[in-house]
Amino acid sequence: MTIYNPPVRDMQFALHDVLKLSRSGLPGHEDLDPDFTEAILDAAGKLAVEVLAPLNAVGDRQGCRLENGVVRTPDGFDKAFRAMKDGGWTALDCDPEYGGQGMPYVMGVATGEIFVSANMAFNMYQGLTHGAYSAIHAHGTDAQKQTYLPKMVSCDWTGTMNLTEPHCGTDLGLLRTKAEPQDDGSYRITGQKIFISAGDHDLAENVIHLVLAKAPGGGEGTKGISLFIVPKFLVNADGSLGERNGVSVGALEHKMGIHGNSTCVMNYDGARGWLLGDLHKGMRAMFTMMNEARLGVGLQGYACAVPAYQNAVAYAKDRVQGRAVTGAANPQGAADPLIVHPDIRRSLMDQKSFLEGARMLTLWGAHMIDKGHNGDADAEGLVSLLTPVIKGFLTDKGFETTVLAQQVFGGHGYIEEWGMSQFVRDARITMIYEGANGVQALDLVGRKLAQDGGRHVVAFFDMVKSFCKEHGDSAITDDFISPLKAASKDLQTAAMFFMERGMKNPDDALSGSYDFMHLFGHVALGFMWAQMAVAARTALDAGTGDAAFLKTKLATGRYYMKRQLPMTGTHLARIQSGAAPVMELEAEAF
Amino acid sequence: MTIYNPPVRDMQFALHDVLKLSRSGLPGHEDLDPDFTEAILDAAGKLAVEVLAPLNAVGDRQGCRLENGVVRTPDGFDKAFRAMKDGGWTALDCDPEYGGQGMPYVMGVATGEIFVSANMAFNMYQGLTHGAYSAIHAHGTDAQKQTYLPKMVSCDWTGTMNLTEPHCGTDLGLLRTKAEPQDDGSYRITGQKIFISAGDHDLAENVIHLVLAKAPGGGEGTKGISLFIVPKFLVNADGSLGERNGVSVGALEHKMGIHGNSTCVMNYDGARGWLLGDLHKGMRAMFTMMNEARLGVGLQGYACAVPAYQNAVAYAKDRVQGRAVTGAANPQGAADPLIVHPDIRRSLMDQKSFLEGARMLTLWGAHMIDKGHNGDADAEGLVSLLTPVIKGFLTDKGFETTVLAQQVFGGHGYIEEWGMSQFVRDARITMIYEGANGVQALDLVGRKLAQDGGRHVVAFFDMVKSFCKEHGDSAITDDFISPLKAASKDLQTAAMFFMERGMKNPDDALSGSYDFMHLFGHVALGFMWAQMAVAARTALDAGTGDAAFLKTKLATGRYYMKRQLPMTGTHLARIQSGAAPVMELEAEAF
Repeated sequence: MTIYNPPVRDMQFALHDVLKLSRSGLPGHEDLDPDFTEAILDAAGKLAVEVLAPLNAVGDRQGCRLENGVVRTPDGFDKAFRAMKDGGWTALDCDPEYGGQGMPYVMGVATGEIFVSANMAFNMYQGLTHGAYSAIHAHGTDAQKQTYLPKMVSCDWTGTMNLTEPHCGTDLGLLRTKAEPQDDGSYRITGQKIFISAGDHDLAENVIHLVLAKAPGGGEGTKGISLFIVPKFLVNADGSLGERNGVSVGALEHKMGIHGNSTCVMNYDGARGWLLGDLHKGMRAMFTMMNEARLGVGLQGYACAVPAYQNAVAYAKDRVQGRAVTGAANPQGAADPLIVHPDIRRSLMDQKSFLEGARMLTLWGAHMIDKGHNGDADAEGLVSLLTPVIKGFLTDKGFETTVLAQQVFGGHGYIEEWGMSQFVRDARITMIYEGANGVQALDLVGRKLAQDGGRHVVAFFDMVKSFCKEHGDSAITDDFISPLKAASKDLQTAAMFFMERGMKNPDDALSGSYDFMHLFGHVALGFMWAQMAVAARTALDAGTGDAAFLKTKLATGRYYMKRQLPMTGTHLARIQSGAAPVMELEAEAF
Repeated sequence: MTIYNPPVRDMQFALHDVLKLSRSGLPGHEDLDPDFTEAILDAAGKLAVEVLAPLNAVGDRQGCRLENGVVRTPDGFDKAFRAMKDGGWTALDCDPEYGGQGMPYVMGVATGEIFVSANMAFNMYQGLTHGAYSAIHAHGTDAQKQTYLPKMVSCDWTGTMNLTEPHCGTDLGLLRTKAEPQDDGSYRITGQKIFISAGDHDLAENVIHLVLAKAPGGGEGTKGISLFIVPKFLVNADGSLGERNGVSVGALEHKMGIHGNSTCVMNYDGARGWLLGDLHKGMRAMFTMMNEARLGVGLQGYACAVPAYQNAVAYAKDRVQGRAVTGAANPQGAADPLIVHPDIRRSLMDQKSFLEGARMLTLWGAHMIDKGHNGDADAEGLVSLLTPVIKGFLTDKGFETTVLAQQVFGGHGYIEEWGMSQFVRDARITMIYEGANGVQALDLVGRKLAQDGGRHVVAFFDMVKSFCKEHGDSAITDDFISPLKAASKDLQTAAMFFMERGMKNPDDALSGSYDFMHLFGHVALGFMWAQMAVAARTALDAGTGDAAFLKTKLATGRYYMKRQLPMTGTHLARIQSGAAPVMELEAEAF
């Protein structure tokens, strides 16, 4: 019932007009000229529109079923998964040594947005595998890489991440899953893990679980944690599948959304596992994947909202209701389309200006990760700083965007058949998993701000400052540079407040952490919009590109600067109110 | 699985310390002393906790079923409905002439909050009946009142409102349902209505539909619309039920939430109907009920969030995770409870400070409606002005509050068994029905602001001003009066902007209508909090009341003033950006 149009032109603008991908000097990027990336994005779009999107509602309606210990995915998922694999999409940005295509991460992210928009729950089977692939790629022994990676690159085997237990999520120091060393160097893993996305299913021959557990001798808390590879089926020396390992699905969770993905309770009952990375350094191994995983969830947050917005636009153009207050726009018809009404416009512009800014920020972040992969420590530091912002801000606003889109439909938005409810329900999880957004805010303020002596946040401010200086006397000064400067000043004032007050009372900083994350998000999107404005203005002045598209880009950016960026003032005022209003009450008073 | 504690003490504070109900001079109010209202609220709470709340998840899980043209409600709803009727709750604020108990509306609203919090979908069967009762009470002939009202007061018969059709919701001028006059003075009604809450069910002997339809000779648009009484079973002269009328359930809608309520497609196929009120004046008849109906939905918006908040508090106290940054709060335990963490506090305080303000505003509005019923035109004008604010702002923020509460649960919030998802899904409808919130904003800015020469908005500003003057040199000046003054000034500036710019270009006003509704909502809640602060301060100084409760009230109010009220600045900035950013793009550019 819903439509989806892959935003290829907008991605091309971000990749080439703004990021200037093929001229970025990174190895392998020189081939990524506009024609090549367009071909990739078009092909991804074709798969998304023809195969994945039609299964989105099917997955929501049917959900997954647990039958005699085996998880069955919704009708059609197996065929679609084969199409995904056959098209080489699971291997796009993987290492050629293990069968990957060696594309940069930014292309994995761009195609990822398209696949998530078409069918988020479906795409998670591949997404989780990619995360597990990255972990083994970064920390595995050569033998482990040879054993697991080729099959995971092709998604013949999929992967999972097992962190959460019933009594602990954020605070992994509490975890109870045990790893007992065996004489042959392997471990026996025993314990229960919950909320395991893609924990089991019928799409692949094997499932490679990465499991956090405590091995003897590591000490209390997170220090004692190690990471283990625990395959569903043991792998023989020749690479063939052996006997079933001691891991089973305890139950399938009944969730608010992403019904098409199997969220499992996993029981480990002396399952055989192999250490991945160093003993008692499991948390560090997890953290190296965190930036990518969290950027991936930030991407989900806004990608979910892309089709929601597109459907809202289609409905607003189609549905006639009332008359434009400035005179009938459709005098031959019984009424005017919704899109003539200012408040519908306000909603659509909120959605559009957020989504295009979010896409730019995510692709920019992915590009920074690519730079980091190529040894640029500053880029890595910058994206590490921005990661909680990308995850927390984009998922909060992405969810809000799905709600706005649903609202355009009036009563029909509340009826499941129309599909708008699913976007809202699916998007909701992105604010929770991979570190709930409050934890992102804590990571930002409690950890990232001061990291490496505060070097990265200073670098961010310097970057914005020099950009503003460069374009401080240009055609975009009034509309973009001035508001960006003001917003960035609010962010600096907030950071200063934390430094001054947080030393004496950490609660003064942490009480404002969530507002700081959003304040940072607005400044980051404002900065992205300013860069897009420069690119659009430049192309317009040069007479290159599609003038109508470029003018729309500028108008959309102006909307963001005028109507979204003023939120920085409110966030700053909240932050400056400090800990007292937040912490005053005794727990009993709630 | 979820808990619910009726907030009787907080209601008592609102009714007696702030509204001073029994001393308000209204007929029938003098008996409403604290002991009497407490007994009523306690009894409502007992029914809510013991009978209604346990069915909330049942209703969500089972939903309603359409079997051979008859709607079956979830298990236990029939017994609970009998308990509701037997307790006299359906008759509480109805006219004693028709079997009602003659309580003021404000008591219907206070008990209504409790019932909605316990089970919103269930309470709608009664709520819709009350709306239909009010319409017949206001516009019916004596014979109609005698025929229908006693049975509707007791809820032996329930009622519905039939406005929406597949092609029109907001724009009722487009409706197609026809009413053909018959020789006996009745009409034959033919057409299809959708989204009819409680349209059919097995809880009552008869369903009395109020149906908007077009009778010949009324002209185009809304002018031709009349309102008709269309019973499911015709009523014989002696009051007994006769033959089945030509109205049937076409389908049940599958909705995002409120599964326990039967949302029906109703087909009228030459059904017999009787004119209610004047011919071709159906819209006017609907509008007289609008204030109550919309206030009732505003109430649903925050009432849904009350148990969501309470469950979040319970979880935050129970779940241990991490350590307080200022030192272990629970050193004997493995970790500290969530409630020690500043960002969890921030979320709980956002919820608490909104909910108590919303409750005060709603009870204040209901009290104004009672005054209006007793001939106070100023009070009626004031509540008419505030009605779109109560409906739009409280439902938007109420929904947000359920999302905040769900977030406290982390991953568990997303799992249906925990019950937090249902609060979110149920609350979502309140932003849509009874006039989507964008329509509320349009009503506020396009109609209510200028109503009666702008008299009511001026009265609102005068009321706030004289309150601020009265308490301008008191113990609450800095914490409450100063921020209220600043926020009220933002609201006046926005209203002035609309007056100056809206004359020339109505889009300049309408582009800011949604922000204005929220700006007004914050000022209204700030005003309520200031009044509660005066009442709490007075009681504390006099040494009456529970000091811990009163101090908590003041601290919660300070939080609202410090951390919520600053939003007025952002709303004003958006409003002042005018129509240009909103209206610039051509429809094709979206």
